[in-house]
Amino acid sequence: MSYQPLILISNDDGITAPGLRVLVEVMSTLGEVIVVAPDKPQSAMGHAITVTQPLRLKPNNIFGTIKAFECSGTPADCVKLALDKVCHRRPDIMVSGINHGPNYSINVIYSGTMSAAVEAAIDGVQAIGFSLCDYSLEADFESCRTHIKHITETILKHPLPYGTLLNVNIPKSQELKGIRVCRQASAKYAENFDERLDPSGNTYYWMTGKLINLEEEDNDTDLWAIAHDYISVVPTKFDLTSNSFIQHLKQLI
Amino acid sequence: MSYQPLILISNDDGITAPGLRVLVEVMSTLGEVIVVAPDKPQSAMGHAITVTQPLRLKPNNIFGTIKAFECSGTPADCVKLALDKVCHRRPDIMVSGINHGPNYSINVIYSGTMSAAVEAAIDGVQAIGFSLCDYSLEADFESCRTHIKHITETILKHPLPYGTLLNVNIPKSQELKGIRVCRQASAKYAENFDERLDPSGNTYYWMTGKLINLEEEDNDTDLWAIAHDYISVVPTKFDLTSNSFIQHLKQLI
Repeated sequence: MSYQPLILISNDDGITAPGLRVLVEVMSTLGEVIVVAPDKPQSAMGHAITVTQPLRLKPNNIFGTIKAFECSGTPADCVKLALDKVCHRRPDIMVSGINHGPNYSINVIYSGTMSAAVEAAIDGVQAIGFSLCDYSLEADFESCRTHIKHITETILKHPLPYGTLLNVNIPKSQELKGIRVCRQASAKYAENFDERLDPSGNTYYWMTGKLINLEEEDNDTDLWAIAHDYISVVPTKFDLTSNSFIQHLKQLI
Repeated sequence: MSYQPLILISNDDGITAPGLRVLVEVMSTLGEVIVVAPDKPQSAMGHAITVTQPLRLKPNNIFGTIKAFECSGTPADCVKLALDKVCHRRPDIMVSGINHGPNYSINVIYSGTMSAAVEAAIDGVQAIGFSLCDYSLEADFESCRTHIKHITETILKHPLPYGTLLNVNIPKSQELKGIRVCRQASAKYAENFDERLDPSGNTYYWMTGKLINLEEEDNDTDLWAIAHDYISVVPTKFDLTSNSFIQHLKQLI
């Protein structure tokens, strides 16, 4: 019998999210699956971890015979708990998602989906975050199944060096043109807080914002790839040092 | 009259934290100060933002005549709100902290202090996060005042390029040896969840962990600097692309 890889899965939309179910189905064709996912949506949680509250972990049979747990914490908490308390051995790979909504460009900083994958990568586990650029709970995940399987198989065969993981975004498109390995586009949100009065006359604010691509002309970014119906794959790291600036800064300080 | 820079200040320990007060005092000697800080501690919030709840913003006279607000959101929320709704013009610089506890090495990923600074930098504002490697609320911030002023003045005079901010950590030491510009050490937490039973017999977990320096021999990292009584200054970026790996990955996928 051939080797069965152990695949750990988490997400940030919570254990009932349709995107998670698709990922569980695809990964079950590749190996043994363990799911540890938040018990409620945890979008935009960034790399938050829970240090002032205890965490709960409960078995959940939502995926039938597949070992699955819901966790009261953040996506990063889920992965930490899974690696320390749930997995009977080191996973061969950790996959996160499929997120309902894009995690390209600067979204990677805010993304709970990616923080789960980053957490696994910090611990030395191969890791990939998958996101579909469609916020709808009725999003069509069908067309991306083969690509997700292909990318995961590739990394199982050719492991990434320590410090690197993948950020994969899939466009909302019926006509996927293929995969582009690319870089994170430089972009920022133009915030516009919506100011309102509550029934007591006190002010409150809703965050709204529009992503501004600062590199619209460049065709080697994830934003370009998605806009042109390609799946974007960005090799991502968690060493945030700006190495190129160290020498210059030494002269200033 | 000479130009008065506008200095935005936030933190993650909340508006009442002693470290914030020190930073406000130091910055008041350099320009006009505006404070927008969380109304409660927000440690380890990573780059979380609040998208499913509205935000509150309340004036607070804790710093006398200095314009200050407490915000119900995360550190990143504070900066977004400050830039959109509070500041009468673009700040010349945003400083975050002084954090009670270290944000060196991989801590940068989990840090609310740094996420506030990153948020400002994404928006194109010069930004520095300051942390003292002492968790105590009675920590001695005196010895670092002149260094914090010097580093901030340097950046006001020599602005950083877009995409770069500073992560400054100050050792708990009476004998500071000076400043080292260095890189983020490769390190990870060895988790060890403390498993307990609540009064109803249900299991819960407390996160505990120990930072493991994966580069103990190297003397060019922030962990080395702090261990040897130097202030560490790491030029930090928020483009997470592993550029060096793009070509290799193109051949695999």
